[in-house]
Amino acid sequence: MNNLFSMQDLSTNDMNDLLRTAQAFANGESWTPREQTFAVNLFFEPSTRTKLSFEMAERKLGLEVIPFESGSSSILKGETMEDTLKTLEAIGVDVAVVRHKQDAYYKTLAETVNIKIINGGDGCGQHPTQSLLDLLTIKQEFGKFEGLKVTIVGDLSHSRVARSNTEALTALGAEVFHSGPPEWFEGDPKTADSYVELDQAIGFSDVLMLLRIQHERHENVMELPAEQYHKLYGLTAEREKRMKPESIIMHPGPVNRGVEIADSLVESQKSRIFKQIQNGVYTRMAVLKHILDQ
Amino acid sequence: MNNLFSMQDLSTNDMNDLLRTAQAFANGESWTPREQTFAVNLFFEPSTRTKLSFEMAERKLGLEVIPFESGSSSILKGETMEDTLKTLEAIGVDVAVVRHKQDAYYKTLAETVNIKIINGGDGCGQHPTQSLLDLLTIKQEFGKFEGLKVTIVGDLSHSRVARSNTEALTALGAEVFHSGPPEWFEGDPKTADSYVELDQAIGFSDVLMLLRIQHERHENVMELPAEQYHKLYGLTAEREKRMKPESIIMHPGPVNRGVEIADSLVESQKSRIFKQIQNGVYTRMAVLKHILDQ
Amino acid sequence: MNNLFSMQDLSTNDMNDLLRTAQAFANGESWTPREQTFAVNLFFEPSTRTKLSFEMAERKLGLEVIPFESGSSSILKGETMEDTLKTLEAIGVDVAVVRHKQDAYYKTLAETVNIKIINGGDGCGQHPTQSLLDLLTIKQEFGKFEGLKVTIVGDLSHSRVARSNTEALTALGAEVFHSGPPEWFEGDPKTADSYVELDQAIGFSDVLMLLRIQHERHENVMELPAEQYHKLYGLTAEREKRMKPESIIMHPGPVNRGVEIADSLVESQKSRIFKQIQNGVYTRMAVLKHILDQ
Repeated sequence: MNNLFSMQDLSTNDMNDLLRTAQAFANGESWTPREQTFAVNLFFEPSTRTKLSFEMAERKLGLEVIPFESGSSSILKGETMEDTLKTLEAIGVDVAVVRHKQDAYYKTLAETVNIKIINGGDGCGQHPTQSLLDLLTIKQEFGKFEGLKVTIVGDLSHSRVARSNTEALTALGAEVFHSGPPEWFEGDPKTADSYVELDQAIGFSDVLMLLRIQHERHENVMELPAEQYHKLYGLTAEREKRMKPESIIMHPGPVNRGVEIADSLVESQKSRIFKQIQNGVYTRMAVLKHILDQ
Repeated sequence: MNNLFSMQDLSTNDMNDLLRTAQAFANGESWTPREQTFAVNLFFEPSTRTKLSFEMAERKLGLEVIPFESGSSSILKGETMEDTLKTLEAIGVDVAVVRHKQDAYYKTLAETVNIKIINGGDGCGQHPTQSLLDLLTIKQEFGKFEGLKVTIVGDLSHSRVARSNTEALTALGAEVFHSGPPEWFEGDPKTADSYVELDQAIGFSDVLMLLRIQHERHENVMELPAEQYHKLYGLTAEREKRMKPESIIMHPGPVNRGVEIADSLVESQKSRIFKQIQNGVYTRMAVLKHILDQ
Repeated sequence: MNNLFSMQDLSTNDMNDLLRTAQAFANGESWTPREQTFAVNLFFEPSTRTKLSFEMAERKLGLEVIPFESGSSSILKGETMEDTLKTLEAIGVDVAVVRHKQDAYYKTLAETVNIKIINGGDGCGQHPTQSLLDLLTIKQEFGKFEGLKVTIVGDLSHSRVARSNTEALTALGAEVFHSGPPEWFEGDPKTADSYVELDQAIGFSDVLMLLRIQHERHENVMELPAEQYHKLYGLTAEREKRMKPESIIMHPGPVNRGVEIADSLVESQKSRIFKQIQNGVYTRMAVLKHILDQ
């Protein structure tokens, strides 16, 4: 594996291999490259938690992390991302984690640059390490994917996580449903069949995966005030009581407390929200190891 | 010690313990945690010198310092500081140094998060590591606090340093006086008794502790031009000549040369201004060690 | 060597020593200081590639690099650069790399501060490590400087690289010519004699050194659209065919593809553009070693 751009690049075998490596790191195993190895995190869109998680994963593997401030970069002087990556390669960087708002920014990169690239999120497209950490969290809980019912609640059309997860979970044998404001699904044929009412989903789901409402993307579409959204499409304390006994709650963070989920449920027994954050570090360590250890 | 929020959390015994550890580091001793340990510096208010000093202290102890750019953080997306700290904890960060403009921002944190926290300055409240480095500088000079006369010159009401220092020095047996523009003291009963005229203080003080004028905080109150302030309330070359032979000059920096202190005195024989900066690193190493070594 | 401010500080012997050390690093040699050593990169002007290159050089030598965000620094609170450097020195920083827009900002620093300083570029003045990496690239290619014909194409008056390189190459025995829009040379007697037409230079130059057009500096002077500049003063595919067989193309980057040089030539056989970037790291390692290893 030289790059990780999209979950679609991974076979179910690849996914299972990565999950095994990630679980080994979660169990306390360690690994370091034989030679001094340099990583850079190119985040052209702000992201505290994904960037911190990669930074932590890189440090735990003993990598040297070269700081990169996108705000003052040559990209702003008109340099293309391709030239920036070629520069980083010439400087001696081994692996770059890239987040960029352009969908599939990486399409042509693999052929033109030799530096290894991990996609840290592109536009409304992919976010493969987030998908993998979600898979790891589910696998830890249930030991398998076959036969699980997973419901993703929120704005599927703008969510990197939702797309990657739907594909991966389906490939691994889970049944995936979607819920949330119906107007967010109109015209998206991919999700039409899988749509369920939230109150119905609550009753049968093993995993309830809440998406973050991205207020910045819904200026026009979403006119609902936060309390109303919570009542209609959020996980309220009342809804949580109707969930199956062994079921779990997931959310990629950062959480809008009292909107997607009741404040009191964030740290509740069914919540795996902080577990997901922990698993993010182990998952990114696994991806880095698979890419660097060749 | 799990956190350090305020000098008020420390008994005089605690202070003396920390000063002993800091002095040991100043003498060249070293200490490193047994396991890879992660620190993060959360500075929501800009501060070059305090941030650099913590960063240096952390590196000297062999900690991994995870960069955090407050400008692009999720806090701006509406996440609470509590949730940010819980995220950092889940990611695996062991200790966070926090500076924030809100007074006593830490009040509820100790009960809700497990990550260890060091207060790097809150609003007009506390700045405990600055106080400790001031104490270390005085201790190195005089070997004791009992009976020393310390005069703090400047805007006590807006100074984190002045408040913490007054309390700590008094507890340790020193006598603390205050001076500066009288209008900055009106209505503050805590300092009324201790007010002295600068020219009187010059004659009897063992330590003259000058505060930085924070122009940004005195738009309305302070109408004095810099030269006038210097003449009335600054340490002029003339005043310095009347100081006691063994007395010292302190300033937390950054210095407004020619305002709080004459340009020529910053590097003078009595000045401990750069010594204070050196001691800042040793003091922060001591606080980190006491918090991490359990 | 305690500092490196300008190529004028270096004798040809010094230059050759540094190039030998840099080549040793290029050949895979390594060196690390005996004690934990701290570096800081003070870039008051943005620069991705120079900053990244220094950062990489510092890490390869095992230095601890203390992050410094010029945007939030005390310099903005009115502190002088001298006081910032004295603070860094007191904190324990061993070496500072400084970039600043003021010409010869370093004039008085060497006498007043003890911290070691490497000039990472000043105004329109010097950029010594860029010059040294250019020299290394030429030396690797031709094994010598004597008798080589080097033509620098672009805006000599605003280019740090061009000035340093002209002086150094001349001192080392090369013959240096200049080309580009004639209006950029009017009134600069230093370059009047050396001016050649580009189409003439193409035929005799061993090294064609293209400068980056700095659009930000030419609002009034340069009225030429990019395509026109390329046609008149750029290295077109057609011109490249008339270059001498063993000749090479250099550019300090970032490249404006299709302006100073045809897009297709950036990665062409004669281009040493990415080699220069690689050599930048080795050169900076050499300068750091010469400054730290005493």
